[in-house]
Amino acid sequence: MALFDAALIPLAVGLSAVLVAVYVVRWILKRDSGTARMREVNGYIVAGTGTYLKRQLKTIFLVIPWLAALLSYFFGWATSLTFIAGAFLSLLAGYIGMNVAVRANVRVTEAARKSSKTTFRLSFQGGAVTGLLVTGISMLGLYVLRLIFTSPQDIQVLVGFGFGASLAALFAQIGGGIFTKSADIGADLVGKIEEGIPEDDPRNPAVVADLVGDNVGDCAGRGSDLFQTFSDDIITGMILGVLFVWKYGPNAIIFPFILEAVGVAASMIGISFVRERKGLSYSTVLYTGLLVTALLGAFGLFILSNFLMNDLTLFFAGILGIMATLASTFVALYYTGVTGKPVRQTAECSKGGPAINVITGLSFGLQSPILPIVAVVGSIVAAYLLTGGSLYALVIANVGTDMMIAFIMASDTFGPITDNASGIAEMSGVADEAGKTLESLDAVGNTMKAATKAYAMASGTYTSFAIFATFFAAASIGSIDVTTPYALAAMFIGVALPFPLASLTISATARGAFKMVDEVRRQFREIVGLREGQATPDYARCIDISTKFALRQMVLPGLLAIAVPVAVGFLFGIVPLAMLLVGATASSAMLGFFFNNTGALLDNAKKLHEIGHCGGKGSESHKASVVGDTIGDPLKDVAGPSVLIFMKLLGMTALLLLPALV
Amino acid sequence: MALFDAALIPLAVGLSAVLVAVYVVRWILKRDSGTARMREVNGYIVAGTGTYLKRQLKTIFLVIPWLAALLSYFFGWATSLTFIAGAFLSLLAGYIGMNVAVRANVRVTEAARKSSKTTFRLSFQGGAVTGLLVTGISMLGLYVLRLIFTSPQDIQVLVGFGFGASLAALFAQIGGGIFTKSADIGADLVGKIEEGIPEDDPRNPAVVADLVGDNVGDCAGRGSDLFQTFSDDIITGMILGVLFVWKYGPNAIIFPFILEAVGVAASMIGISFVRERKGLSYSTVLYTGLLVTALLGAFGLFILSNFLMNDLTLFFAGILGIMATLASTFVALYYTGVTGKPVRQTAECSKGGPAINVITGLSFGLQSPILPIVAVVGSIVAAYLLTGGSLYALVIANVGTDMMIAFIMASDTFGPITDNASGIAEMSGVADEAGKTLESLDAVGNTMKAATKAYAMASGTYTSFAIFATFFAAASIGSIDVTTPYALAAMFIGVALPFPLASLTISATARGAFKMVDEVRRQFREIVGLREGQATPDYARCIDISTKFALRQMVLPGLLAIAVPVAVGFLFGIVPLAMLLVGATASSAMLGFFFNNTGALLDNAKKLHEIGHCGGKGSESHKASVVGDTIGDPLKDVAGPSVLIFMKLLGMTALLLLPALV
Repeated sequence: MALFDAALIPLAVGLSAVLVAVYVVRWILKRDSGTARMREVNGYIVAGTGTYLKRQLKTIFLVIPWLAALLSYFFGWATSLTFIAGAFLSLLAGYIGMNVAVRANVRVTEAARKSSKTTFRLSFQGGAVTGLLVTGISMLGLYVLRLIFTSPQDIQVLVGFGFGASLAALFAQIGGGIFTKSADIGADLVGKIEEGIPEDDPRNPAVVADLVGDNVGDCAGRGSDLFQTFSDDIITGMILGVLFVWKYGPNAIIFPFILEAVGVAASMIGISFVRERKGLSYSTVLYTGLLVTALLGAFGLFILSNFLMNDLTLFFAGILGIMATLASTFVALYYTGVTGKPVRQTAECSKGGPAINVITGLSFGLQSPILPIVAVVGSIVAAYLLTGGSLYALVIANVGTDMMIAFIMASDTFGPITDNASGIAEMSGVADEAGKTLESLDAVGNTMKAATKAYAMASGTYTSFAIFATFFAAASIGSIDVTTPYALAAMFIGVALPFPLASLTISATARGAFKMVDEVRRQFREIVGLREGQATPDYARCIDISTKFALRQMVLPGLLAIAVPVAVGFLFGIVPLAMLLVGATASSAMLGFFFNNTGALLDNAKKLHEIGHCGGKGSESHKASVVGDTIGDPLKDVAGPSVLIFMKLLGMTALLLLPALV
Repeated sequence: MALFDAALIPLAVGLSAVLVAVYVVRWILKRDSGTARMREVNGYIVAGTGTYLKRQLKTIFLVIPWLAALLSYFFGWATSLTFIAGAFLSLLAGYIGMNVAVRANVRVTEAARKSSKTTFRLSFQGGAVTGLLVTGISMLGLYVLRLIFTSPQDIQVLVGFGFGASLAALFAQIGGGIFTKSADIGADLVGKIEEGIPEDDPRNPAVVADLVGDNVGDCAGRGSDLFQTFSDDIITGMILGVLFVWKYGPNAIIFPFILEAVGVAASMIGISFVRERKGLSYSTVLYTGLLVTALLGAFGLFILSNFLMNDLTLFFAGILGIMATLASTFVALYYTGVTGKPVRQTAECSKGGPAINVITGLSFGLQSPILPIVAVVGSIVAAYLLTGGSLYALVIANVGTDMMIAFIMASDTFGPITDNASGIAEMSGVADEAGKTLESLDAVGNTMKAATKAYAMASGTYTSFAIFATFFAAASIGSIDVTTPYALAAMFIGVALPFPLASLTISATARGAFKMVDEVRRQFREIVGLREGQATPDYARCIDISTKFALRQMVLPGLLAIAVPVAVGFLFGIVPLAMLLVGATASSAMLGFFFNNTGALLDNAKKLHEIGHCGGKGSESHKASVVGDTIGDPLKDVAGPSVLIFMKLLGMTALLLLPALV
């Protein structure tokens, strides 16, 4: 063993990430949590989150042991073990991160109330915990498993880890997404429109469910999504790496893992940069932090490509991956930003009523995926050419897309934390004192959410591309026979699959929202004094409704992602299964970008009214834009994130099945 | 030459179809065209249709000569000639059919007014003319070209015909679709909602544009679409047929053409069956007519497979094609019919407001394509297996999907004719006399429209599948290399392409509708006495606006369908081009079904209110459903039909390029 073993980098970075997270949590918990009323309100949120999580885990734990048993029977105990580890660690990371977020939020409110200079830092660090835990725990888990399963042939066993993480992500994201949106839509439709009370008014029975939803949907959901992307990329990177040892030496296997670790290290430095800075706006600081992360990541990539791998072309491949995700992010910012033509024109068209508002939004949304997709596949082709025709380039470009993942996760969780902070301020009657700071933080949070979603989508598409490339390589498929219709027919089915998945998640949200509307109307009708603020609504009942609809709908999508590849694989064979993945990836990516961007741009077209454009708040045009926003909600927060996770889960299921099919 | 040459069948059937059409036209024109006011109103429609057509042809004729010159330069005069023939004949068939439709409509009104026993027959025969002309002219055109280009190698030259027909179809459908929907939405939003006047009220300035739109969109648009499918299928059938002469003998080339002719003959008998029949509802008669057509077609298929080809497995392949289109049609009827759960639940959800109405509609729409796609690819795989692994099965299954095309076309055009007839009745003040009969005809027309769209979509997907199969075969591509990323990257781009296309067409509609709303509002504001019915609105100006927006948007989609395959073909080669087609077909099919069914089900959720459900006409729930209907309009009548034609044009472009790429 050399004096310095590069393979130790993931261990070191993983440990540091977790330790820093612990340090940050302690720092956060020491902050002041405000007035008694604020703590009371926060208590509702913490309790609601806890209730949801407990019931979600219960549902998941009904499924996990059976699957573990099946895996053990068909693929041996090792795969079963890694599966449990993947699912467990993914849920753990999300669980802790969310628990921190629901404690950071009230402290952010308090900091804003006292115009503390650390308000921004506090809310961002609250998100950073999730970012650090997601990446740190994934690395430590995989590192330990690598110590147990040491031979290159054992890497296949790690697929179980990715499969577990993917399944947990599907549950967390679909459940969380449906929860948050049925609550959100229900709260808005009755509260804002029918009763005419402000957002986050404590009289609204669904308001706590809405605030809980931000955490279980955006925070836990996105956390499990990025845990999945991050883990899957390390695993496929190592599997493909084995096949390139002949070309790049034994480091080819561990190189992707090390690069991911370097990305996390770069993100940690980037995260530490984000705090209040004189003369710089919040978004400037965030973009600078992102840039710092990207540059440090690129620098690490350069050093390692040159000295560890002796091949600078790999550096360029990684850079192409970074650029593709950044390009997708900026395209999303253009389509969904309040200053861009799409949002402005959609807002303008609201004057023609809700229908023209939505049609315009849809038309921009439909064109928004083309550039990201060109960026993703273009960078893959370019990386392939630059490395002189090596598919290993895909691995490295794919790792490149992950280098900023911890930073992105922090920026993403920042959104629900500030959103919650505003809600708590409104509900505890301290909105006047805390309002100004929180409002500007909230606006930044919204933009970051759209950007990080685009990042997750682009990076997830890359992951999925890497998964099926790994599948082709591991199954030694060099070409697809097109003289028989099987492969192409399977590809068609693959393209079709995300549509019913999106349908399932959207319809669950619609039904949940419909029930929520009923319940909120009932409480306003039956609880005496509620409208006057003299009675407390039954918050728990609303949380219960959201929970029920969310959990009921987790099973069918999971089944779809597992049963279809199993059926296609065993009935038609490996090649059709591979083409199913290819088709599903392509169409999931398109739908994902379409759903996310459409929803975000309709949301911001509404916001544009609320800051005074197109007739301002309360105008007919504003009302039309609220309808558009509500239609966009389940697209961007349920369907979009769900198809993204679905395509990755589909791939990991296929990869898992592979040994049984050859 | 034998005593009876089967190759003469297409000539005989083609001639008969055209002659019968002429006979039917004469019969229609002899009917009474009603009161002076009715003729006046009809005069507006005829004039508006003429204006639009003239300007559309002018735009098209700006493009055609240049393309013809390019084709002549690169591929020789023969391809250029067939290209011109294809484009010209497609436009001709649509042009004549539409001219008959706009003359049949007023006669249907008059027949209904007099409770004539031939009202139903008259409106259906008005549509039958288009069905007969579309198929008859295509067959005659291709037959004559076959006489000029006799050798099997010459068949490639016929691709020019398909390319011309496809390009004309794209222009006709996109132009017509945008025209009809901007007029329709503009008329509804101001007339029905703001001014509270009934549908088709003569005071509405956009009402004539709306009625003209039904003809240029549904009648001419669908006509060119099915002309394209019909012609493309004969051409690809013959090209693939050449490659199977070794297996099935020389008849393999002409067999698909003969089968198409048999289908038209069967349709002619089916069409003649449709008329008022004692004790049978209109829809029962229509379904029986369809069944008669299908059975006769199947019988012809059986006879010819057995005696001309000596291979009964081909019969089963054809039956599978017929069944796949029928299955898709019935799935569409389930999703979009007023008695099915999707429409009822969507209507029910309108009580939660427009947003929940639309979300519910979208969620059903998103799941609706899965069964049709499974039917299409499943039947392809089954046909392949049944014929003992022969790709020729795909040709025959594909021809099977066309056997009812003339009947379907007649049922489709029946819709705009009755729609127009109702409009004329309303505008001429004879609605009370003609109302009852027309209303029930209109309801049947609406259902048929949704069904025929699904048929067109399924049959078009088959066509597109056959096109790329032909491409693979003609280019001798046996397998796709997946060790380089080019093919799969191109497939991703293919999957992406229909999204921006849909975006272009929807945004043009939204902008046109927005302008139309402005114009209609202006006329109500500025024309003294308009609201009181004492002044005539400026109908022509509204037609002008629709025309302008429609024509301006025809060029970019056409460019997309031509430039992208050219670029991919020349930059990356034949295989990536083929995979581009595969990807585009798969995603266009999904989007097409999704758009069509979503729009139709939102439409019928509104209708359900209008016949008294969910609070009835004028309720809040009804208003919510009107918003949903308006959002669905451009999806089902612009985007859906456009992606369908786009995928076929893309394929014909690729097939055309092939000789230059090998």
